[in-house]
Amino acid sequence: MDEHKRPAGKPYLITRSLTTENQESPIHFLRMNRIPREYFYRRNHFPYPTLIDDIYMLSVDGEVERSLNFHYRDFLNMPSKTIVAPIECSGNKRSYFRPKVYGEQWKDGAITQGEWRGVPLNTLISMTGIKKSAVEVLFEGRDCGKKPGYENKVCFQRSLPIPKALHPDTIIAYQYNGEPIPYKHGYPLRLIVPQWYGMASVKWLKRISVIPYSFEGPFQTDDYVYYPQKESDIGKRPVTTVNVNSTIQKPLDYQILDRGIHNIDGIAWTGEGRITKVEISLDEGRTWINVKLQVENEHPYSWVMWNYKWDAEKKGEYVIMSRAYDSAGRVQMFKPEWNRKGYGYNAVYAIRVKIE
Amino acid sequence: MDEHKRPAGKPYLITRSLTTENQESPIHFLRMNRIPREYFYRRNHFPYPTLIDDIYMLSVDGEVERSLNFHYRDFLNMPSKTIVAPIECSGNKRSYFRPKVYGEQWKDGAITQGEWRGVPLNTLISMTGIKKSAVEVLFEGRDCGKKPGYENKVCFQRSLPIPKALHPDTIIAYQYNGEPIPYKHGYPLRLIVPQWYGMASVKWLKRISVIPYSFEGPFQTDDYVYYPQKESDIGKRPVTTVNVNSTIQKPLDYQILDRGIHNIDGIAWTGEGRITKVEISLDEGRTWINVKLQVENEHPYSWVMWNYKWDAEKKGEYVIMSRAYDSAGRVQMFKPEWNRKGYGYNAVYAIRVKIE
Repeated sequence: MDEHKRPAGKPYLITRSLTTENQESPIHFLRMNRIPREYFYRRNHFPYPTLIDDIYMLSVDGEVERSLNFHYRDFLNMPSKTIVAPIECSGNKRSYFRPKVYGEQWKDGAITQGEWRGVPLNTLISMTGIKKSAVEVLFEGRDCGKKPGYENKVCFQRSLPIPKALHPDTIIAYQYNGEPIPYKHGYPLRLIVPQWYGMASVKWLKRISVIPYSFEGPFQTDDYVYYPQKESDIGKRPVTTVNVNSTIQKPLDYQILDRGIHNIDGIAWTGEGRITKVEISLDEGRTWINVKLQVENEHPYSWVMWNYKWDAEKKGEYVIMSRAYDSAGRVQMFKPEWNRKGYGYNAVYAIRVKIE
Repeated sequence: MDEHKRPAGKPYLITRSLTTENQESPIHFLRMNRIPREYFYRRNHFPYPTLIDDIYMLSVDGEVERSLNFHYRDFLNMPSKTIVAPIECSGNKRSYFRPKVYGEQWKDGAITQGEWRGVPLNTLISMTGIKKSAVEVLFEGRDCGKKPGYENKVCFQRSLPIPKALHPDTIIAYQYNGEPIPYKHGYPLRLIVPQWYGMASVKWLKRISVIPYSFEGPFQTDDYVYYPQKESDIGKRPVTTVNVNSTIQKPLDYQILDRGIHNIDGIAWTGEGRITKVEISLDEGRTWINVKLQVENEHPYSWVMWNYKWDAEKKGEYVIMSRAYDSAGRVQMFKPEWNRKGYGYNAVYAIRVKIE
């Protein structure tokens, strides 16, 4: 009869909005280091760009010795690098801030990890040369549109400081998980900036300009800025590297379980150094237990899957928490750093379950 | 260039669990009275039943003059009735209860509406006859499995009192939206009980027994019971008819909007009588505005779509609320009736938006 059994069902992206498409990964149902393309979260500021003739061209100009135009084919013929790293939206977990903040109400799935293959930007820059006047590198995507509060059409643009832009692991990617980058994720060429939040990894890359000043576009000085105050801009600072973080994938929040052995599964990741330790608590944070990490040594930016086998003998209600530590000495705190636009949430993760 | 434009994206079911498949409808992105099958919420207590030889047979027995076996084909040849009605899980909106309750954390999408076609149960009973000893009609589905807290395998069974079972609109359905019922929704035959919460509409219908007593199966005396107290069973009563309710589909909670005209869209429904009025408030419930209802007169059980065009002139934060009234004199209250297992949530619906 087994051949007649229907599968229990598969998870889907979680729709947050469709005005511009924003859908999150069903991260609680994905236990793997390379998330398939169909489960990659979608985050857009604008409608998807139209496919036009020059989509395979990428120009590098500005404070360089010689401007160059690269074709998609050129990238396929250059020495490549493979990076396994999570891409996390800085608004991931925004819905957990208290007081709540406006914007896309992401829960845990505005993060996805896969294998990116591409050419380091510094390979291109070694061909164009770079002038002493260079201060930043500006990246422009092909996605443009109306932004609330702005009169004219704007395109997605972000800059990086020179050291980050020329870091050997900052790549112009042309493959995701061994295939061309999906259209919705930046086909044909996407910048990948490991360790920074996802807004830095500009999609549908059109132009790279080395600039002699600090860029002040709307996605750098208005959005993607931590504003610690509700009413004033005092203390504001740009969103850059990913905070140390962890998510319990399983069990689910407010799940009812039988007595017996249960896997507590999760992931942990950071934008500085490596994850060195993950702890869980089964008593609301009074005591903590080290959990087993599954580290992929050859991929230092990869998130770390972790697991704990919990023998739930006693009926009752439990709070299960997780917290991660990184080699930069950072650890998840009980209280997140609240900020007006809701970026960088990384408080200790907590769920409640009931053993019946 | 328009032919090159990619669609913005489509919504998906929202995965709540896959141990048994529980996924909700993306109700905020569906503005129609007949929801396509792929967006029908999935709610299961057990793994999907296997397809076996007798799946097209339905027996009617017990306190009847003559037991009869009906084949799927027989239904296609009997006079049929078409019912447009929402099917709502009694746990719909469970996640909004405070204090929170355990179980599937449904938000607004454990409800779907479509057009069911089938044969009234009373047509079958007119063929079998019914004895004076009849007290209830018991319906058994083909879905069985382990239930936490029970030693032996149990199958999904629910009973109805005779008047509800023999109501001319209680049908054995064989079509959904003009097509055979989808496998995951009860193919080939499903009981449809308008006005009652979804647990009454037994899927994969196998057997109908007229019984001379009140049935006390686990899905009637353990689950699907309102327990108003956390620690004791005092005041418990069975879950039956759907509460008067409404959901704001659009805008989304914590959405940021431009100044200007915005559609406030929603649905309202009830299990007693008809929806007579829906009001919204733009000032946290101090004043209320009647909204326009789109009533399908020929389908009295149908939910009602409603709309209000809001001219949002002033920047700021707003609380938008909706509440529905029905012809039985019921209205949504500010406070829901909390109950331990989280059924029947129908408090005034409220979202927050920010005009920028």
